[in-house]
Amino acid sequence: MRMTVPMGLRWSDLDAYGHVNNVAIVGLLEEARIQVLWVSDEPGESVPTAVLENGLGHAATMTLLARQEIEYLAPVPYTRRPVVIEMWFSALGGASLDVCYEVRSPEGVDPVTVYARAATTLVLVDAASGRPRRIDDRERSAWQPYLEERIAFRRH
Amino acid sequence: MRMTVPMGLRWSDLDAYGHVNNVAIVGLLEEARIQVLWVSDEPGESVPTAVLENGLGHAATMTLLARQEIEYLAPVPYTRRPVVIEMWFSALGGASLDVCYEVRSPEGVDPVTVYARAATTLVLVDAASGRPRRIDDRERSAWQPYLEERIAFRRH
Amino acid sequence: MRMTVPMGLRWSDLDAYGHVNNVAIVGLLEEARIQVLWVSDEPGESVPTAVLENGLGHAATMTLLARQEIEYLAPVPYTRRPVVIEMWFSALGGASLDVCYEVRSPEGVDPVTVYARAATTLVLVDAASGRPRRIDDRERSAWQPYLEERIAFRRH
Amino acid sequence: MRMTVPMGLRWSDLDAYGHVNNVAIVGLLEEARIQVLWVSDEPGESVPTAVLENGLGHAATMTLLARQEIEYLAPVPYTRRPVVIEMWFSALGGASLDVCYEVRSPEGVDPVTVYARAATTLVLVDAASGRPRRIDDRERSAWQPYLEERIAFRRH
Repeated sequence: MRMTVPMGLRWSDLDAYGHVNNVAIVGLLEEARIQVLWVSDEPGESVPTAVLENGLGHAATMTLLARQEIEYLAPVPYTRRPVVIEMWFSALGGASLDVCYEVRSPEGVDPVTVYARAATTLVLVDAASGRPRRIDDRERSAWQPYLEERIAFRRH
Repeated sequence: MRMTVPMGLRWSDLDAYGHVNNVAIVGLLEEARIQVLWVSDEPGESVPTAVLENGLGHAATMTLLARQEIEYLAPVPYTRRPVVIEMWFSALGGASLDVCYEVRSPEGVDPVTVYARAATTLVLVDAASGRPRRIDDRERSAWQPYLEERIAFRRH
Repeated sequence: MRMTVPMGLRWSDLDAYGHVNNVAIVGLLEEARIQVLWVSDEPGESVPTAVLENGLGHAATMTLLARQEIEYLAPVPYTRRPVVIEMWFSALGGASLDVCYEVRSPEGVDPVTVYARAATTLVLVDAASGRPRRIDDRERSAWQPYLEERIAFRRH
Repeated sequence: MRMTVPMGLRWSDLDAYGHVNNVAIVGLLEEARIQVLWVSDEPGESVPTAVLENGLGHAATMTLLARQEIEYLAPVPYTRRPVVIEMWFSALGGASLDVCYEVRSPEGVDPVTVYARAATTLVLVDAASGRPRRIDDRERSAWQPYLEERIAFRRH
């Protein structure tokens, strides 16, 4: 099963080439990760599909990136409609997890264009000690349904 | 009459202080301006309230900033719900327009917090010649309903 | 007396118009402020002209922006050579200070172009309590030599 | 042979965790690439070691990213002294090139910390037609001396 995150672009994501910049796309992956991984404690807000407690800002847990791989398949034009980021997990380790992403054209655009594919390895780190901490049972059971095969890259 | 633009934050808008950064807030004003001023030619998209043709990316018209004034009234915390940017015009000149902004807490949050007030002077510039160009009749009549008094700043 | 801060541009400061973006310029002011106001404790590093202790990252003091005014006088082209930001103070209050800026073409470019003029009001805030704190004697005596008249804006 | 690019950090490269953000590090790679690959036509400026003509802003050639892989080895703290980015090429294809990077602690810091390793595949694209264009003889001979083995990643 996959999570689907609509992700609004900003005009400032464009670079001097008039495309959504490659660095900005990496930023969109980060934002999608944050929206999906962290429980929000704000009232009236839908609980995200995968949960990590005490998140954001002054967090008890930090999620640090250990690795990131991204393949850019097509230039991303500026669009008002959110692009779609599909996310799933390809590995749940002791203190780390692998997240896969497919960035696609906005909902309703036909035919669908896949702009980018990516995979990142995240490590959960205890903010106080700075040391990795284990994925706990609640997190593991929340994330388990989204375990799928690792994304296939075109070149390697 | 005012335009109301919901503006989603990104986690990357936070700085090392854990607040939405002052520069990021200036970026949100830019994004609100773009969403409101430019006609989108994408199918199925609601037409914005104020219109400027041929916008975005490779535009026939560029909107350049001549002046910007902003008052930060309260730190902006990270929130998943879009903050609200109210916008209106306080002057429509020959080739320039003054835009006023009030940045507020998300819809439904009670009591309302005003985070920032701002005013910017924009100049319409012909992209080919690099020279200012006049606001045309269609733009003027689209923008006229949103003419209000200039925003009042606390200090000056 | 004024402080002179060379400020390197990044290609990502450009927007889709091919100019250094107005928001990026506000970011350059922030960066100049940080380089000038904060003492660095790194070995072998020249001490900045104006001092604020315990700065950066996890700071005892935060400098929050209360007000910002900027006038954009000429588009800033991308250049490899650092642009020049001249800075001085126009007011030293109890817990706040007014900083003035002139952003100019790189050293050695003739004739000199003034790209932007700006003024910001900063408030010193105790990071622990979140409350404003007074400018102390050491800071005041370090900043005093850079007190000059407030920058003059073209329009107001 | 490798190219060594000193790369100044900005305070805004920090995220709410107080580290240089993973996305910002990808941005530093982009900036290093631009400084090294593009000839500058500005007077008095040292010519970069590797040359690509007509660069920057309104370029005849665009360099688009096809692939990017990055391994984050240690958190990057904020520092006033430029971090060091070592760059070299691991492949020069018809219209594409592979660039390798090692991001390290500032010159003079002992012991040296390697913050990140990365590899990107760039494609040269003719800006007018949007089609890939071949690396020309001048570029190839400028880049040849910096051909080395592909960077070794820890995990794969």
